[in-house]
Amino acid sequence: MRLSRYFLPVLKETPSEAQIVSHRLMLRAGMIRQQAAGIYSWLPLGFKVLRRIEQIVHEEQQRAGHIPLLMPTLQPADLWRESGRYEAYGEEMLRIKDRHKRDLLYGPTNEEMITDIFRSHVSSYKDLPLTLYHIQWKFRDEIRPRFGVMRGREFLMKDGYNFDLTYEDAMHAYNRHLVSYLRSYERMGLQAIPMRAESGPIGGDDTHEFLVLAETGESEVFYDSEITDLRFGDRAIDYDDVAQCRAVLEEFTSRYARTDDTHDAAAFEAQVPEERRRSARGIEVGQIFYFGTKYSEPMGATVVNDKGERVPVHMGSHGIGVSRLLGAIIEASHDENGIIWPEGVTPFHAGIVNLKQGDGAADAACESLYSALKAKGLDPLYDDREERAGAKFATMDLIGLPWRITVGPRGLKNGVVELTSRRTGESEELSADAAVDRLAQIYAPHL
Amino acid sequence: MRLSRYFLPVLKETPSEAQIVSHRLMLRAGMIRQQAAGIYSWLPLGFKVLRRIEQIVHEEQQRAGHIPLLMPTLQPADLWRESGRYEAYGEEMLRIKDRHKRDLLYGPTNEEMITDIFRSHVSSYKDLPLTLYHIQWKFRDEIRPRFGVMRGREFLMKDGYNFDLTYEDAMHAYNRHLVSYLRSYERMGLQAIPMRAESGPIGGDDTHEFLVLAETGESEVFYDSEITDLRFGDRAIDYDDVAQCRAVLEEFTSRYARTDDTHDAAAFEAQVPEERRRSARGIEVGQIFYFGTKYSEPMGATVVNDKGERVPVHMGSHGIGVSRLLGAIIEASHDENGIIWPEGVTPFHAGIVNLKQGDGAADAACESLYSALKAKGLDPLYDDREERAGAKFATMDLIGLPWRITVGPRGLKNGVVELTSRRTGESEELSADAAVDRLAQIYAPHL
Repeated sequence: MRLSRYFLPVLKETPSEAQIVSHRLMLRAGMIRQQAAGIYSWLPLGFKVLRRIEQIVHEEQQRAGHIPLLMPTLQPADLWRESGRYEAYGEEMLRIKDRHKRDLLYGPTNEEMITDIFRSHVSSYKDLPLTLYHIQWKFRDEIRPRFGVMRGREFLMKDGYNFDLTYEDAMHAYNRHLVSYLRSYERMGLQAIPMRAESGPIGGDDTHEFLVLAETGESEVFYDSEITDLRFGDRAIDYDDVAQCRAVLEEFTSRYARTDDTHDAAAFEAQVPEERRRSARGIEVGQIFYFGTKYSEPMGATVVNDKGERVPVHMGSHGIGVSRLLGAIIEASHDENGIIWPEGVTPFHAGIVNLKQGDGAADAACESLYSALKAKGLDPLYDDREERAGAKFATMDLIGLPWRITVGPRGLKNGVVELTSRRTGESEELSADAAVDRLAQIYAPHL
Repeated sequence: MRLSRYFLPVLKETPSEAQIVSHRLMLRAGMIRQQAAGIYSWLPLGFKVLRRIEQIVHEEQQRAGHIPLLMPTLQPADLWRESGRYEAYGEEMLRIKDRHKRDLLYGPTNEEMITDIFRSHVSSYKDLPLTLYHIQWKFRDEIRPRFGVMRGREFLMKDGYNFDLTYEDAMHAYNRHLVSYLRSYERMGLQAIPMRAESGPIGGDDTHEFLVLAETGESEVFYDSEITDLRFGDRAIDYDDVAQCRAVLEEFTSRYARTDDTHDAAAFEAQVPEERRRSARGIEVGQIFYFGTKYSEPMGATVVNDKGERVPVHMGSHGIGVSRLLGAIIEASHDENGIIWPEGVTPFHAGIVNLKQGDGAADAACESLYSALKAKGLDPLYDDREERAGAKFATMDLIGLPWRITVGPRGLKNGVVELTSRRTGESEELSADAAVDRLAQIYAPHL
């Protein structure tokens, strides 16, 4: 993309309404615009990151064998009356009447609807196991929306639901989700720690939240410092292998790690040596639940088992806060000059800064670099505006592209451009070809 | 995807509520499920096609230089009060009150919001031309939703908005949209004819609708039969070239083609020789509008021009009915056995039918074919169920994959599999390798 033709409305001033850094930076970088309390437009740069995150979630869910579909944003109230949650959900549920005075609601989650889909179409244990998921806009009418997309009202969530014949099968689905979530977050450049948590209004016995450590987190968390050394990395995993998935769960959840809801000071002291006890703040970016037959029983989601008996299925639900992740990533990765995107989610792979727009050699070198990067499957942002170098650098720093290539007449005389890392600030002079090769290599795991 | 692990709830019986063939086939093929009147879940197969169509629209819009963003589904009523449409829109607008009794609405379209975004961030003619678009769920509270996704209440639409300094620039944007729409529909295997139309509640002077001819179309259309010979094809187009885009518009709109709203029998007779006069029914799958300063004036969307004067921008809006397109494509492409997907939008590129599941040689050949197709970047559906061949064929015909590879012990003895075209029904025996190569070649333009 050429910046002269893009729509990137960066703000010079820091908006006064934003209390936390990710909200400030998303506004300043022209990523979002508030349209009503807790309701945002995703401007082009924000939309690009949202799509990259969504894409990672899709890929990792499908790798785990989970099947995508798409449920609508609006739901009939009757489904929620069946489960008993229509009255129970309270004022966070946005209730709507259509022109025929029928009760609808804007879905805050989809247990009822997916259970309805299941019971209408599945009747034999032979069709299990089954995990269906979607990535769809949800609405929760928060009384005080704030922190930008971190606590918005209209938000994008991936929610997945497993249907299994037995408790054991459902626990395998639970573990599979844990593994796929670890992979997803790592691809986004995040460390998200599974912590034992309370189940909240969805209900459930076994549940872990995934928390990203950040000063602005809404939850206080307590954990064994050894946990932060764990990485899933690029190990191979067979999602059908029960023991393998369980081993990952055990590796990542055997050490003490809890949110304040479930924190037990005595257990913390008993289990963790003092020098490894940590308390910090965390941002919740996902949660996995096993809730058994809580919905399948009242809603009649049953299958016939191999003995010919009709039994309710074991279910769980598993969520990733897709839109909220943008805020979480920025909270975890920024400096005083702006955002620092991890390579896995950056809106553009590299910025090209032309130090002297209008100079024949500089323009030609930038054009050729731009084409060469695109030919490698990379997505560059070329700042071709007639602006001072300082202003161009400030924009690139603010919007946080991990790599910048600076092209100017002086370097070109020596046959070099400058490649700069946003994270370290380190620069290196090298030929344009070498810069392209380097970036292709850096991004190979992400393409 | 292996069918044994997929969720494809095909129906044996034809649902009685469905009045038109696309609705019947989408229900029978397990593509959608109605959740409330005019509100559908997109089951896995339907969701896949929806995504393919969405992807084509994204690619063609970006090729034309249009910039994606994403506006929320809910909008504040105040924006619509500014334009005067809040009261005017009538009962099709779904009006909502949140917990603080603030008026929201589920967006039926986005002229107001995009104009608000524009006026907040753009103030100079130097930032023009600009075309922003999104693909987002909309809601129109139809009094009598019907025909499945063809006339749903919650529906997915691409809506784009151009902002230009002058009428001439805006007309170039109009032409650019026309070209990009022709390309998009052709990639989906559709012929959609631009026809002069009425503007409806969005308002506007210049407007064309794109219609797919089909017996079940909601509009009566009148046209010169020469129009159906026109193809955009794979010609190169420079979207910045004003004359080139205008020439395409002229080529595709100079012959008589109108919907019943604008039909003029006298003009039809005067302009079209009798043997070329046609009347038929059509399904509207898109519309382009130029409406000048209808929104920019009341809402204050102005820029400073090169003389230092503040002037309202010229705008247009341009829509493609993404979810409705699934219905339109099926109406235009099916037979008595089911859907016939065009290659550009098919949910899976080919079906593999194993005639003898459990037979060592047949299973191995299918597995190897499955891997070979995936290695070519193709997305096969392997029917690995223990089912009769007839049932497997019926399912493949119903869900409409354009190509089927049939693998059985007898063919394997002769070193061949069978490649069958869904459209023609013609089969050919060839080696598995040759079948893979043939499919890779067929799909090369679509990958």
